[in-house]
Amino acid sequence: MDGCVFCKMVAGEIPVAKVYEDDAVFAFLDIGPISDGHTLVIPKQHCTRIHECEPDALADVASRLGRIAEAVMTAVDADGYNVLSNNGSVAGQVVDHLHFHIIPRKTGDAVFMEWPSYRYKAGQIEKIAAKIRENLK
Amino acid sequence: MDGCVFCKMVAGEIPVAKVYEDDAVFAFLDIGPISDGHTLVIPKQHCTRIHECEPDALADVASRLGRIAEAVMTAVDADGYNVLSNNGSVAGQVVDHLHFHIIPRKTGDAVFMEWPSYRYKAGQIEKIAAKIRENLK
Repeated sequence: MDGCVFCKMVAGEIPVAKVYEDDAVFAFLDIGPISDGHTLVIPKQHCTRIHECEPDALADVASRLGRIAEAVMTAVDADGYNVLSNNGSVAGQVVDHLHFHIIPRKTGDAVFMEWPSYRYKAGQIEKIAAKIRENLK
Repeated sequence: MDGCVFCKMVAGEIPVAKVYEDDAVFAFLDIGPISDGHTLVIPKQHCTRIHECEPDALADVASRLGRIAEAVMTAVDADGYNVLSNNGSVAGQVVDHLHFHIIPRKTGDAVFMEWPSYRYKAGQIEKIAAKIRENLK
């Protein structure tokens, strides 16, 4: 898409630390990492947020995630990783071209320690589940 | 898999606030949400971490994410969402059955505000990218 920085990377118009490329999927290192080896995996075809992308494009990206994540882990000697896609500016999406972050993690690091979970009030979980199911029809 | 709580949910042996089910994929509300409508999407077939799952199983899950995420957003009137998979205990994985969190986000919420990015030293990004490419061969 015109003006999209990730589309320009795919087209070779912007230099990038590429780690993987095939007919449908492109992966490169994030220049503002939150851990060494922090990689972005994107569909070559422009789409913005997960629910606006073709299911086949999501399947293409996801089916490559394992192989890329394993190579990233090995390269930086990580013990695990987070795979994260931020959808919408409220969720932290900065570039409006779908991307999955692969964030390598090591024992004792201080990345993403926050997990502010809580409990639903009695009956609330069933109400929300019913509302989601209605919207899936 | 014997002893896996998510496999027991798929088998109907543990009650769950289900939101979606087909032949390959199952989705339900997290009982310890970090926002209302926090949903988990899993492959029915047991696998543990992304790089240990079959590419086809990842594709199955990912191809359903958009439809489910849109229904979740509508149900809880969210403005966006994070999709997150924690792989390995170091990354926050608690249940050893692959799952993608869909975490609805609203303007002004205080969920996942942390993004401790930094810059690589000169030359470091190219070295790491080369090492990942080597491990992909």
